[in-house]
Amino acid sequence: MTNDHPFLAMAHKLADAARPVLQSYYRKPLSIDEKGDASLVTDADRAIERTMRDLINAELPDHGILGEEYGQENLDAQYVWILDPIDGTKSFITGKPSFNTLIALCRNGKPVLGVIDQAILDERWIGVEGQPTTLNGKAVTARECQHLKDATIFTTGPDLFVDPKAIAGYEAAFGAAKQPIYGIDSYGYGLIAMGFGDVLVESNLQPYDFCAAVPVIEGAGGTITDWEGNALTMHSGDLVIASGDSRAHAEGLAVLQKAIA
Amino acid sequence: MTNDHPFLAMAHKLADAARPVLQSYYRKPLSIDEKGDASLVTDADRAIERTMRDLINAELPDHGILGEEYGQENLDAQYVWILDPIDGTKSFITGKPSFNTLIALCRNGKPVLGVIDQAILDERWIGVEGQPTTLNGKAVTARECQHLKDATIFTTGPDLFVDPKAIAGYEAAFGAAKQPIYGIDSYGYGLIAMGFGDVLVESNLQPYDFCAAVPVIEGAGGTITDWEGNALTMHSGDLVIASGDSRAHAEGLAVLQKAIA
Repeated sequence: MTNDHPFLAMAHKLADAARPVLQSYYRKPLSIDEKGDASLVTDADRAIERTMRDLINAELPDHGILGEEYGQENLDAQYVWILDPIDGTKSFITGKPSFNTLIALCRNGKPVLGVIDQAILDERWIGVEGQPTTLNGKAVTARECQHLKDATIFTTGPDLFVDPKAIAGYEAAFGAAKQPIYGIDSYGYGLIAMGFGDVLVESNLQPYDFCAAVPVIEGAGGTITDWEGNALTMHSGDLVIASGDSRAHAEGLAVLQKAIA
Repeated sequence: MTNDHPFLAMAHKLADAARPVLQSYYRKPLSIDEKGDASLVTDADRAIERTMRDLINAELPDHGILGEEYGQENLDAQYVWILDPIDGTKSFITGKPSFNTLIALCRNGKPVLGVIDQAILDERWIGVEGQPTTLNGKAVTARECQHLKDATIFTTGPDLFVDPKAIAGYEAAFGAAKQPIYGIDSYGYGLIAMGFGDVLVESNLQPYDFCAAVPVIEGAGGTITDWEGNALTMHSGDLVIASGDSRAHAEGLAVLQKAIA
């Protein structure tokens, strides 16, 4: 099973370049800074993003870049790479391998290619618009889960929900689902895409936290939107729900909408 | 670095036998049953525990056994093996490698040898009473963290805390710490023992959930007790706090005691 896209080779090249940098910092002493938004950044995050940006600037100078650590350049370009060198930096710092390197390519703002790369577990999910999602080159599909009441539901932690509306949505969705699983980071998108979880609900996200998940979830037969049901773009807000089954997704949206109304 | 104990070879033998069984079930279709206490059991849990019990019965017939799935035998023996074939069954089912096989040996009720084995990540922590804890044969130590306010604090999820006092304790401890990390399962004991986390607080546990952690945490320089500060035995209750630094542990105990008073 192989995906096909004019920039797929570049996406692999970026993930391949990120891996050894990430591995060299894993479970080693790190320089950790707190950013203005209370998220953390390490020298590992910076080194990985620098590596990927340098490759893009060298090989595709007309493409734009939006990265977590080094900001934006040329966002008006037709193609923009959205980079999160380590999504789940707090898990990375604590040596818990649920973090991922996230790489998305947006065309006119819309995610058309996504990579979720777990460098320690040697797992790489690839999503390409309109094509089956793969994990390490093999096609994967989401599983059926018609009703939210039967769903295994993911999030990273209750502390992710800060705004009162976000808290209300989290509590309503988790109260309506069957089995909560916490500490999931973006690994949850990969698990849903391969049929090992049903719904993921998060808030406080940035485009680099979710753009890569869009082609991965959709190419596995799943659905991913904001809490109002809108498709996600590089301009979307911070509220995301992803599901393997569009029917549970619709129920999840209804629960979220009612809770935050 | 090697540990030494008359039954250490047997502990390795049990963990070695458990691994291929666990691996053969990982991310495969599973038969899942809900137990009376709402915890889950799969054919993988049963097969792993059966494998370990058969070895103990064959080689050490005068030893007792307390296992999660097949109950107790000969608990009055001087030596009792405490077995949790898959601690974190919900994570196992969802393909998230924070679960572990837990093996403890108690002498007169007290844990003197503990194994935390992560079969997918190829990580095995060994704790022996009075000896340095090892991870894959190399000594590891907990890190300093004098104050709870500076601590990275672990638990599996807020849903673990059901009793009102347990909820009060959880909220107080997490409110007083710096950085919560969720979804940790018993992997958190291993991370604390190697200096990648500071405090773990859980409730609703059984002896097979924590006995293996006692020699692992203590051999790394850490402290592990119930919420009243009592040493853990195979007869302890369901409330556990583990810390890498005894000073943060004392602060954590004070916060818990105040919250549940």
